[in-house]
Amino acid sequence: MLHSVIMAGGSGTRFWPLSRKSLPKQFLTLAGERSLIQQSFDRCQPWIPAERTWVVTGKHLADLTRQHLPGVPDSQILQEPAARNTAPCLGLAALCLLALDPDATMLVMPADHVIDDVAAFRDDVQKAVSLVDNNPERLVLFGVPPTYPATGFGYIERSESIGQGAFEVKAFREKPDRDTAEHYLRSGTFFWNCGIFVWKAKRILEALAQHEPEMVARLETLRPHIGMPSWGDALNEIFPTLKSISIDYAVLEREQKIAVFEARFPWDDVGGWEAVARLVSADANGNSVVGPVLTVDSRNCIVRSGDNHVVALLGMENCIVVQTPDATLVARRGDDEAIRQIIQALQTPELNKHL
Amino acid sequence: MLHSVIMAGGSGTRFWPLSRKSLPKQFLTLAGERSLIQQSFDRCQPWIPAERTWVVTGKHLADLTRQHLPGVPDSQILQEPAARNTAPCLGLAALCLLALDPDATMLVMPADHVIDDVAAFRDDVQKAVSLVDNNPERLVLFGVPPTYPATGFGYIERSESIGQGAFEVKAFREKPDRDTAEHYLRSGTFFWNCGIFVWKAKRILEALAQHEPEMVARLETLRPHIGMPSWGDALNEIFPTLKSISIDYAVLEREQKIAVFEARFPWDDVGGWEAVARLVSADANGNSVVGPVLTVDSRNCIVRSGDNHVVALLGMENCIVVQTPDATLVARRGDDEAIRQIIQALQTPELNKHL
Repeated sequence: MLHSVIMAGGSGTRFWPLSRKSLPKQFLTLAGERSLIQQSFDRCQPWIPAERTWVVTGKHLADLTRQHLPGVPDSQILQEPAARNTAPCLGLAALCLLALDPDATMLVMPADHVIDDVAAFRDDVQKAVSLVDNNPERLVLFGVPPTYPATGFGYIERSESIGQGAFEVKAFREKPDRDTAEHYLRSGTFFWNCGIFVWKAKRILEALAQHEPEMVARLETLRPHIGMPSWGDALNEIFPTLKSISIDYAVLEREQKIAVFEARFPWDDVGGWEAVARLVSADANGNSVVGPVLTVDSRNCIVRSGDNHVVALLGMENCIVVQTPDATLVARRGDDEAIRQIIQALQTPELNKHL
Repeated sequence: MLHSVIMAGGSGTRFWPLSRKSLPKQFLTLAGERSLIQQSFDRCQPWIPAERTWVVTGKHLADLTRQHLPGVPDSQILQEPAARNTAPCLGLAALCLLALDPDATMLVMPADHVIDDVAAFRDDVQKAVSLVDNNPERLVLFGVPPTYPATGFGYIERSESIGQGAFEVKAFREKPDRDTAEHYLRSGTFFWNCGIFVWKAKRILEALAQHEPEMVARLETLRPHIGMPSWGDALNEIFPTLKSISIDYAVLEREQKIAVFEARFPWDDVGGWEAVARLVSADANGNSVVGPVLTVDSRNCIVRSGDNHVVALLGMENCIVVQTPDATLVARRGDDEAIRQIIQALQTPELNKHL
């Protein structure tokens, strides 16, 4: 059976002041009515029902996860006692899945991306699932055709076609510099690595055991505790001792039997406030606004106000204004990375309560 | 004796969202620890004590006035049931003053201006009081030497000197256009009319009676009610029937015995947020900030945040950010008048609660 595994352990700061330590990006409702984690769940409904949905998140985010996804069985909200990157996260998910369904296929996806065309996504995933069903040794991932020379994503270089829109993977490439990214964009044989994977749970655990035997040996000690009252204590003891490493480094870059599908679905990693201008349709003056907002003589602004609070813009251009009850950001548009400077400056005894 | 009359009936919107219908500019603390009305009171202490201080304000602002100026006798906080411009306001003040002190001299000043050099102000006023003591028919006003071609002030053209820094007034000039303002600035014989006056209470009431007999006839009907329980009802009945006209139009422009002193004191009418950049000293990047504010890579901004709220600026230049619990303004600097467009746009059933 096909199970979805939503990776929801992220703790970004790019959406400050809307996102906080206690409310990371995946729990934000940036556009529409549903949070990003809810949208991640929704896009698999009714195709992968809640009973086959798994969420891996931080222990401190478990309550929030339950509130956002009340249908997902509590035993399938896996709580990491400490962040250890994606390899331990997915190893843990595979272990738990296999206890329930020894032939489980996993659709892995981050909780905090936006995929607008659900039908296209489903079609693409179904093709990947077919490939894995017929070739259970395959580890499948999706590559997004680049639309600009992004320097913030890892790239996948494809090799020859293996049919049905899939390719062998020639190489994984780290986040490139600008010139290299331009080259990747022009070449037409590079994809963005969007972190969406399809594989057999058994296969990924075996691959992990091959490349990171210590990690899987420790994970295996958890197996007798699955579904037992001792689970929480065992997880708390073992998980923090696991090596912090991504699934890309731990497995994908070391394996030969990887296949990449060119994603036909529109994908947005929602990397920062600039993304909101893509997600929230702009008014005639190019302003993307959410909440009670007044714009006068203003253009190309991203503005967000809370309930019962009005944000009024007068004569502004190309700026971001985000109002929350205890913090307001006013920033020039164009550099999502720059928010880190604000986060840094907030690390003072007086101001860190606003983080 | 010398009495001060603080005109505190203003209801401006230039400081939205800090100023509101229920909290006009004179009650704002824009710099330092004291509100503008408190500063107006303070600058006469201990020289004109609270017992000789009078405030004329709107009835709906009486409680606020009492809170800001707890030392002023309640009977000397004159409550206008309706706004009728400065002639009825000062006629009423003169009437009440005379009942207490038939030889009273009035120092009239707006509640919402800033005068930094209190000693210079006192010296100037003392000269004006001497002139009036020696020439009780004189109506004295202060002219501020213009420092730029302001189009937002009325001007006073001086004529020949009458000694001690005072001049006859040749003419009053309405708010000029830019070219005319440039001419006024160059000529050296024009002053800004700052609305600060010194005269005998008896004399101003006589002048008002001469030029606006109907107004004074109605005011005189209030005289028997002064200090009586019937005062409030009588004022409520009579005051709204008075002609709405400024003291400038009603008296000053029609009189010959006007004298203008060149003000030696620094004067700021605090006409809008731009004024705050003059009142609040800027940091090394030219940012004038009040409250918990963080500025990164930002220059020449005016920023104000409330308690327990941080405003973070990133990459901004020449903007105004004012945060209050229910409304935030983000505006380009340089045009204090433009705020009217926001006030206009807030006149909707959903948004007018923020006015």
